[in-house]
Amino acid sequence: MSSTVDTSRRVGIDVGGTKCLGVVWSEGRIVGEVRRMTPDGADALTDVLTSIVNDFGEVDSVGIGICGLVARGGVLRASPNLHGMTDFPIGAILSERLGTQVWVDNDATCATVAEWSAGAAMGCQDVVVVALGTGNGGGIVAGGQLIRGTNGFAGEIGHMIVEPDGPLCPCGRRGCWERYASGNGLAHIARQAAQGGRQKCIIELAGSIKLIRGEHVVQAVTMGDAEALLIIDEFAHWIALGLANLANALDPEMFVIGGGLAASGDVFLDPVRRAFSEILYAPTLRPHPKVVVARFGEQAGAIGAALLATQTH
Amino acid sequence: MSSTVDTSRRVGIDVGGTKCLGVVWSEGRIVGEVRRMTPDGADALTDVLTSIVNDFGEVDSVGIGICGLVARGGVLRASPNLHGMTDFPIGAILSERLGTQVWVDNDATCATVAEWSAGAAMGCQDVVVVALGTGNGGGIVAGGQLIRGTNGFAGEIGHMIVEPDGPLCPCGRRGCWERYASGNGLAHIARQAAQGGRQKCIIELAGSIKLIRGEHVVQAVTMGDAEALLIIDEFAHWIALGLANLANALDPEMFVIGGGLAASGDVFLDPVRRAFSEILYAPTLRPHPKVVVARFGEQAGAIGAALLATQTH
Repeated sequence: MSSTVDTSRRVGIDVGGTKCLGVVWSEGRIVGEVRRMTPDGADALTDVLTSIVNDFGEVDSVGIGICGLVARGGVLRASPNLHGMTDFPIGAILSERLGTQVWVDNDATCATVAEWSAGAAMGCQDVVVVALGTGNGGGIVAGGQLIRGTNGFAGEIGHMIVEPDGPLCPCGRRGCWERYASGNGLAHIARQAAQGGRQKCIIELAGSIKLIRGEHVVQAVTMGDAEALLIIDEFAHWIALGLANLANALDPEMFVIGGGLAASGDVFLDPVRRAFSEILYAPTLRPHPKVVVARFGEQAGAIGAALLATQTH
Repeated sequence: MSSTVDTSRRVGIDVGGTKCLGVVWSEGRIVGEVRRMTPDGADALTDVLTSIVNDFGEVDSVGIGICGLVARGGVLRASPNLHGMTDFPIGAILSERLGTQVWVDNDATCATVAEWSAGAAMGCQDVVVVALGTGNGGGIVAGGQLIRGTNGFAGEIGHMIVEPDGPLCPCGRRGCWERYASGNGLAHIARQAAQGGRQKCIIELAGSIKLIRGEHVVQAVTMGDAEALLIIDEFAHWIALGLANLANALDPEMFVIGGGLAASGDVFLDPVRRAFSEILYAPTLRPHPKVVVARFGEQAGAIGAALLATQTH
């Protein structure tokens, strides 16, 4: 569609709890990629990120996506997976080390930028990206604009409370959407069902009830286990409930489902679409938002980080 | 702050289930006001709205706020309170009758425009307006922009599900936020408590349990009834839960509480603020959004309708 191709070389690095994934994005694709272990401590992390950027040679912009609450201005306020990095001004420190402006945002916000700028939601004005991984994060585009919030914390949709008496969340509250609509949530639903004496296939795959993970449910479904489909239906219902809540507030054209679970989208997305159509407010009065799988897999955060420099700020 | 005053004469009409309230807005204030009964049927409503505008004399713009789902382009898709007006192209019909462009939007969206452009949220980039009336509607401003959604239906926050096993909502689902955080919700909470043998003061004010309305709870509190305060605490908790969900998604600077219940804000807003601080995700890592009472009362919808023409579309 576009007749101009961006030939800039943009580096993006996704800083996760265990690894840092760096990419060079140019002419609409990845032209370089590197992985490093995420080290402990702010100084060691700064060294690793600096060396990743320098190893890529001449580049036009640098962006960082990082798991945690990132304030406007590129300060990591806190992260559940990066210990001892409270109030770490990663943007300013890296900018000084590299001698160039460094853009920093939350990893799920970066994945949203990737899908919106170059992926499944290209050209959309109103879209919500939901990253279903171990937990559940997301990002919101509304009115053709990435929504960042007054502090930069917008998109923490996994902590929407959908069941006030639900299971305790590590965030300290009960019944957050993430407790149901995530890999951990899928495992929780399956373990609950298994404790009721069902789900023999899943238990066999996992070895024991307490070892059940989301992937065992997916595996059982692909093996044709009918009981596992009941788990998927319950899981899909919870996903749909959260999507419907977001649709009522934001009326998006599309939901993009990313994160680690997106690879198993074949197993649960049709049930999600069915449940969503039943839960959405005023379902007969509007076209229903599409629910699609993300274009980018585990590289989404890094690609979006690379594209941060192209956003209006 | 602004050195220029808009001397245009802008008409706004709030079309409710029982009455139409029209205002003329000029130089930042109401300079004309009229009320008419809302008639039955689309033709009669068109006549009433036309005559309201014509009676105001020379005007520069016309806007309509209407209770219901309003599609982009000014078509009323459906309204719970205006029967027989499905897919009514009120914008186009009034434009032809009046010979001028007519802006149309949902009444809660209009109230949001009023508070954001001229009221409690002036100058904010990120704000959510919550109208607590018989039901619960709202509007969202994010990144300095009114969020309308792909169909124009954004802001239906009252139908966010917060308790999947909760009471049935007229929308057909269970546990919508509106079932708790509204005048009807307050009455429901009080009736539940009264059925348990408590709330003698409220029952006396109402005459019987089934006649309890939200205003009886407010009245009991202002009379110093300690039991009624427990109702307010529960009510405040539900309001706070929905606000926290919206804060996690949108990270606003401010919530503006409008609607009929806002007049009793003294009674419940401090409990809401306390509960909100306990429920918000990552409460120690950010300044908490302000929770304030709307500037405009029952005229908010009409004022916002008058200001629709000043918005980017």
